[in-house]
Amino acid sequence: LTVVGIGPGTPDWRTREAEAAIALADDLVGYRLYLDLLGDAALGKRRHEKPLGEETERVRLALDLAAEGRNVALISSGDAGIYALATLAWELVEREDRPRWNRLDIRVAPGVSALQAAAARAGAPIGHDFCTVSLSDLLTPWEVIERRLKAAAAGDFVVALYNPVSQRRREHLASARAILLEARPPETHVVLARNLGRPEETITFTTLGELTTDMVDMLTLVLIGSRETRRCRRGQHDFIYTPRGYAGKGVGI
Amino acid sequence: LTVVGIGPGTPDWRTREAEAAIALADDLVGYRLYLDLLGDAALGKRRHEKPLGEETERVRLALDLAAEGRNVALISSGDAGIYALATLAWELVEREDRPRWNRLDIRVAPGVSALQAAAARAGAPIGHDFCTVSLSDLLTPWEVIERRLKAAAAGDFVVALYNPVSQRRREHLASARAILLEARPPETHVVLARNLGRPEETITFTTLGELTTDMVDMLTLVLIGSRETRRCRRGQHDFIYTPRGYAGKGVGI
Repeated sequence: LTVVGIGPGTPDWRTREAEAAIALADDLVGYRLYLDLLGDAALGKRRHEKPLGEETERVRLALDLAAEGRNVALISSGDAGIYALATLAWELVEREDRPRWNRLDIRVAPGVSALQAAAARAGAPIGHDFCTVSLSDLLTPWEVIERRLKAAAAGDFVVALYNPVSQRRREHLASARAILLEARPPETHVVLARNLGRPEETITFTTLGELTTDMVDMLTLVLIGSRETRRCRRGQHDFIYTPRGYAGKGVGI
Repeated sequence: LTVVGIGPGTPDWRTREAEAAIALADDLVGYRLYLDLLGDAALGKRRHEKPLGEETERVRLALDLAAEGRNVALISSGDAGIYALATLAWELVEREDRPRWNRLDIRVAPGVSALQAAAARAGAPIGHDFCTVSLSDLLTPWEVIERRLKAAAAGDFVVALYNPVSQRRREHLASARAILLEARPPETHVVLARNLGRPEETITFTTLGELTTDMVDMLTLVLIGSRETRRCRRGQHDFIYTPRGYAGKGVGI
């Protein structure tokens, strides 16, 4: 069983390892949208589509197929190890302790996460210390998320928000913005990246002060600069980046 | 000009976009070790090697070659946007404001960072909120780094330490460990990943209590678990992962 991160959208962001794991697989297990993104690479393979929200069933099926001796690729978007299915696979192996799963050869193929693709499109906003925080409170209490956001603010980290909104929950993004605004000015730069690596991709530059929840949907990665993050126009370039150094230290060593 | 992240070590972790940018380039600019990692992909191209430590000269050369009309790939290991050359390229474009650079088509090709490769080898330690902190004080004052570490401890983030030691500076790792030990127990899981993606790759599991500076060198990525991170043995598997959920919330939704 290989848990494969296929990157966001385009096959251009897929690694050789991910492509090889898919090519060798007899069975592909994943959310339909991600299997569709594979295009021709999925031809001739057994497809096992499960809807979003049935992650546990999807991973259990992949483990069971592998235990039957089949070569299985369990497909995640982005990086399989970042808010994705690799964690759930290991959770199930630990919790259920099934001899037929414990015998398997389980591998994780990392990939480009949405954070990195958004950064590459915007310039270099994660060129210095950054953190990721998921705003989903399905499995994590909001108090823990809030504590993380306060810590991110105190440490002046560049912050990538994963799962900024869901269908049933849209208020956490405003709370996150308010927490960060206590520590950084409203002019702090923000990148909104939507549909990364797809034809309908959009990259929007805004600021923490101007950010509103209706600018963000479930497909949006929200990247919030630190106090050092800069936006700059030079000729045809409009870019956001976080310098390597601080004003107190010389730049250009 | 494309600033290309080639991932750590093996071409298996290289994206299609990175390979295409290298294939199309007339000129490759980079640290010799990284150009050597390209193997046959570098054949027939002009190579411009600069030693480590001359990053600014390397990026300036790449911009100048591109301004002469050449197709240039500036080679970073890992992700070009994470503690790598993309930030420096944008810094130089802003600071020097040269018309011949401002006209260029500058792109960043993201890649698998050491953090992600280490995580994939270990299990799924960055399956929940994480942060990265560079311990290099070449350009960042130690007080800022210390504040970041304290914030990471307060937020119970999984922490990836980049540049944990250098030739002239080995004391910061012990300071980082001490700061994290104020907030997490000595049993906290740690992954040490060295020479990722190369034949001599080693992955070592240890704990924060047992971590000593002589276990770490310049080629080591240090990944420190949160209070939730678990190590587990099941059959042939020995893995470290950070669950998606918290004890207070049900697992398996």
